[in-house]
Amino acid sequence: MRYKIVMSYDGSNFSGFQKQPSLVTVEGEIEKALATILQEEIDIVASGRTDAGVHALGQVAHFDTDKEINDLSKFVYSLNSLLPKSIDILSCERVSNDFHARYSTKLKIYLYKIYLSKFNEPFKRNYYHICGYPLDVEKMQKACTKFIGEHDFKSFCIENPQIKSTIRTITDMHIDVKEDGKELDLYVTGNGFLHNMVRSIAGTLIDIGRGRFDVDYVDEIFASKDHQKAGKTLDGCGLYLLKVDYSQQN
Amino acid sequence: MRYKIVMSYDGSNFSGFQKQPSLVTVEGEIEKALATILQEEIDIVASGRTDAGVHALGQVAHFDTDKEINDLSKFVYSLNSLLPKSIDILSCERVSNDFHARYSTKLKIYLYKIYLSKFNEPFKRNYYHICGYPLDVEKMQKACTKFIGEHDFKSFCIENPQIKSTIRTITDMHIDVKEDGKELDLYVTGNGFLHNMVRSIAGTLIDIGRGRFDVDYVDEIFASKDHQKAGKTLDGCGLYLLKVDYSQQN
Repeated sequence: MRYKIVMSYDGSNFSGFQKQPSLVTVEGEIEKALATILQEEIDIVASGRTDAGVHALGQVAHFDTDKEINDLSKFVYSLNSLLPKSIDILSCERVSNDFHARYSTKLKIYLYKIYLSKFNEPFKRNYYHICGYPLDVEKMQKACTKFIGEHDFKSFCIENPQIKSTIRTITDMHIDVKEDGKELDLYVTGNGFLHNMVRSIAGTLIDIGRGRFDVDYVDEIFASKDHQKAGKTLDGCGLYLLKVDYSQQN
Repeated sequence: MRYKIVMSYDGSNFSGFQKQPSLVTVEGEIEKALATILQEEIDIVASGRTDAGVHALGQVAHFDTDKEINDLSKFVYSLNSLLPKSIDILSCERVSNDFHARYSTKLKIYLYKIYLSKFNEPFKRNYYHICGYPLDVEKMQKACTKFIGEHDFKSFCIENPQIKSTIRTITDMHIDVKEDGKELDLYVTGNGFLHNMVRSIAGTLIDIGRGRFDVDYVDEIFASKDHQKAGKTLDGCGLYLLKVDYSQQN
């Protein structure tokens, strides 16, 4: 039987999602809790692996077990009581064996949070990219539209020989301005994301906002297919996996 | 020359304020940064020592040095660039030698944040006391008034033989309800606070809100002068030192 879980986590104190020997990871903690409850070794498959420091509000994973889980809400409750408080399982449901947390994904929504401040921001440091420069948000909004559509994102990711194609489609990308202009929330929705893609896009937008790059320079970065041409890849702490959408597949 | 600094810090990853060998503390980090800039050993004296996990938005300390600091805002900038991002020095000013961060205190304002939720709350766990029970806020507000005025707070603190008197005056205490009733912000203003006093008061209020204690039971706790009679002392992570007021003294 296959089960789908949706979870949120504060990535600040995890060495990323992926299980690694002798490191505390989200996957490691969840599989440990599942093994305790189900009394068998469980492998979870997530929609994607978030890096160290990256957060999630709606990460999705699936796992298989021979045991039937009758009371799903009680199961979620037990799981949460075993997990560290930095992880919260939001739901668990039975899905068909066709469902695959990674391959059935239709859309993913990421949020990258930027906070404009010259201070150390003790309470925001783990949850935002703190930017000490003033930014031209209008230019950044204009630049957002250049990313929408199908593009080769080779310049906006870390090269991975296992990935056949770096072509992806971004269906929506925009910035919500909050807190009297101090907070910039960058939303990126797409059919798939490459390693460091949102962080590299966010860094490029900041370079545009600071005036280091023109808006049209985005076209040049795309054309170059060279990651060195893009802006600095921003830190993981500003990034949130908001939602994974499977449409009618589950 | 005496200088007064005001600072905020996220207490989550500190072993409290007070310097301790081989532990990371707020005082330890600040004194290290001051020593680097001023090129001499500096002892800071704070308005009070916050426990592990306790936060501050307006903690105050003073220190003495023979060196005259000419550009105070540049000094603050240098200090912050040396400090971990979990500490932010908000200001530094020259004060008279009569000023004492601890003994000149007229009033202190504390905030204790409670969040009502049955979930793990990954993003709130370090910044709130998460309470899984429904609370009768009206009763808690009524109970607040019982604490206002001059009282012997012996029942609401950890005994400390070095403290001569446990009599303190609370001038204001109330709860602000936010987030559709899910967030309770308890504000406590007083002329002085004993060890664990706000956390013990907050725990007693929760026991009243849950129905374990009647509002009038507060009188009995005061009369007993027995810490065992009070509610559970809540965790440090919900507590914030908001402001230290020195009136016309600085």
